[in-house]
Amino acid sequence: MDAIEVIRAKRDGSELTTAQIDWVIAAYTRGDVADEQMSALAMAILLNGMNRREIADWTQAMIRSGERMDWSGLDRPTADKHSTGGVGDKITLPLAPLVAACGAYVPQLSGRGLGHTGGTLDKLESIPGWRESLSNEQMLHVLRAAGAVICAAGSGLAPADRKLYALRDVTGTVESIPLIASSIMSKKIAEGTGSLVLDVKVGSGAFMKTPESARELAETMVALGTDAGVRTVALLTAMDRPLGLAVGNALEVEESVEVLAGGGPADVVELTVRLAREMLEAAGVSGKDPEDALRDGSAMDAWRRMITAQGGDPDATLPRAAETMTVAAPASGVLAALDAYAVGLAAWRLGAGRARKEDPVSPGAAVTLHAKPGDAVREGQPLLTLHTDEPERFERALEALEGGYAVGASAQELLPLVIDRVTP
Amino acid sequence: MDAIEVIRAKRDGSELTTAQIDWVIAAYTRGDVADEQMSALAMAILLNGMNRREIADWTQAMIRSGERMDWSGLDRPTADKHSTGGVGDKITLPLAPLVAACGAYVPQLSGRGLGHTGGTLDKLESIPGWRESLSNEQMLHVLRAAGAVICAAGSGLAPADRKLYALRDVTGTVESIPLIASSIMSKKIAEGTGSLVLDVKVGSGAFMKTPESARELAETMVALGTDAGVRTVALLTAMDRPLGLAVGNALEVEESVEVLAGGGPADVVELTVRLAREMLEAAGVSGKDPEDALRDGSAMDAWRRMITAQGGDPDATLPRAAETMTVAAPASGVLAALDAYAVGLAAWRLGAGRARKEDPVSPGAAVTLHAKPGDAVREGQPLLTLHTDEPERFERALEALEGGYAVGASAQELLPLVIDRVTP
Repeated sequence: MDAIEVIRAKRDGSELTTAQIDWVIAAYTRGDVADEQMSALAMAILLNGMNRREIADWTQAMIRSGERMDWSGLDRPTADKHSTGGVGDKITLPLAPLVAACGAYVPQLSGRGLGHTGGTLDKLESIPGWRESLSNEQMLHVLRAAGAVICAAGSGLAPADRKLYALRDVTGTVESIPLIASSIMSKKIAEGTGSLVLDVKVGSGAFMKTPESARELAETMVALGTDAGVRTVALLTAMDRPLGLAVGNALEVEESVEVLAGGGPADVVELTVRLAREMLEAAGVSGKDPEDALRDGSAMDAWRRMITAQGGDPDATLPRAAETMTVAAPASGVLAALDAYAVGLAAWRLGAGRARKEDPVSPGAAVTLHAKPGDAVREGQPLLTLHTDEPERFERALEALEGGYAVGASAQELLPLVIDRVTP
Repeated sequence: MDAIEVIRAKRDGSELTTAQIDWVIAAYTRGDVADEQMSALAMAILLNGMNRREIADWTQAMIRSGERMDWSGLDRPTADKHSTGGVGDKITLPLAPLVAACGAYVPQLSGRGLGHTGGTLDKLESIPGWRESLSNEQMLHVLRAAGAVICAAGSGLAPADRKLYALRDVTGTVESIPLIASSIMSKKIAEGTGSLVLDVKVGSGAFMKTPESARELAETMVALGTDAGVRTVALLTAMDRPLGLAVGNALEVEESVEVLAGGGPADVVELTVRLAREMLEAAGVSGKDPEDALRDGSAMDAWRRMITAQGGDPDATLPRAAETMTVAAPASGVLAALDAYAVGLAAWRLGAGRARKEDPVSPGAAVTLHAKPGDAVREGQPLLTLHTDEPERFERALEALEGGYAVGASAQELLPLVIDRVTP
């Protein structure tokens, strides 16, 4: 078998065989298929597609490129959640300890932010002392101690996906549902979770702009998980406006802690509780109700144990940006729209995100919201606060927000917070 | 501008702007656009196409990546020919000196064979002492001395094409008419010829298997040449069966010399004379008739001067392969078919061609024909002779020929030698 034969088959619209997929993923992982060959194949897949069987084979081949974790020795079921990424999406932070407090183990491997969407690891790293890199033994230790662990995926997990993801990022081959679905699911299946809830974001601040494309991605991923023996369900949720009131690393941690303390913005609380119920149902755990666990402090206890077990100080004061600037309401009326992408891009330009994987992020850089779409506002009242360590960044952040918000007589139509639910 | 933006535009079906094309070719040549990015773009071009304006811009950008030769100081018009490659296609060898003998200069930059089609430089290198590598000054010297020169393109000519061609070869992105046409025409336009005749081969032994695809390629190339100020015409010619009776390097040189001596196989003579007339007409030269130049020895004189000026001995005995094997006619009747691809592949497996650019070729390895399709044959008479230095190669050559010839009651329908003529 050789790479050109596989590339030509997909280029000419054929279905790739299991043997072709197994070979090309293994050969790419060991370097016998070159980057320039894999990028040509990725473009052919993006343009000509893959069917369900090919996607399943592709995913399994990426899983087999590395180790597969095993939590079967634990005394409780495991459950995990994956979000396709959004603006202000800090849900993993309160959700993991909440589900742990309700009786399931949450072994979560997370990633960093790239582009305008934030990354869970970047957020948690604003906590002094917290370490994202754990060995499998350390991961098991934290899981037993706190019921939940959030850490970086080790290099042994789906190395083919790691290599392919970096390649797609620079070759214009990211936007392919087969490649996105197999990338996400190879890591989640290799991670060894028994059940999985997918939060597929829809709207301007998400990767999927329409419910239709999000549903296609969700159905593809649910099928992949189910075929691999993982109880998988997906929610399509709104990302036309930011989630919560904080968009930025340290301030999102603070908002998450508010939720764990029984407060926090209504949309963050609602989505956290809904996802927790889905995870517990998928895991077959029917102990404590998530709303009770937020009220009685048990979720907060799990959070504190989890942060402490990973070297962090849950009582530490988090970093703040040196400079702030307020954006005032231009008129009185109703905040008609506040676009998730515009806010995400502004936060990114203030220093909260990175353009390249190796760039650092600023923990304090953020955009905070003083109103949400539908709220009444008065002319001149603060609408947004921009936070940065480098005041020269304000100008381009303001440019990102141009046209991203509007005050009018009534709010524009918004997506429901939970749009749909996709089951096997 | 960045590579991902250009890749995405073509991926999503947009027309690339002149600025995008200029930038991506220049940046690829200097290494700022990586191989894996260019291969993704090449696949997007292969699958989504380019229009005439984009192909012209792409060609011009590749020409501008290097030097452009200039023959305007010569006292006679220049004419060149390019063949898309076939089996037994040695036409360049008699044609260049023939056209020189009729009054035009022929400055021809040629290539090596890859796969089952032979390369002009490989053929000429069977002549002891002959050098393919000339400086521009040496090229001009040979041109003045002999009227024709056949040599390798220097590395300064369309370096973007050189780099892209090698990349396409390993990434399954060869079979794209916009990329094939721009690759050929960038070199021919940069070579500085005033007129150009394209011999676009059609059939099993050619790159283009059908007259329709060959016509599309011919029309694209004729438009590119015309737009660049080169008087360009194309012939579509038959490559369903081999051209002439010899397929292999040294034996094709011998067959070419037979043609220059006034003999040779009828199809080689007919096509050589037809292409010579096209070149002379395109160059606006109406001196000697090509048939006369073959008869009176002036074409042979030009050949001898050309070979001598490049260090070769036109009277040298050419290398022969150490071993031969005869394939006999399996029955009496008419040679119904003799497939060009099967014969080309057999010659390649005998050592006449190369699998990789850096491989050597055997000058003596060849297949010689004792009958052409339509000829009457008797059972047991020699049909083909296989020539090789390594007898262990016979078996795979015979496998290549299986099903490639047939003896029957009458010949299968063949393409006419000249199928069509394409003008601006």
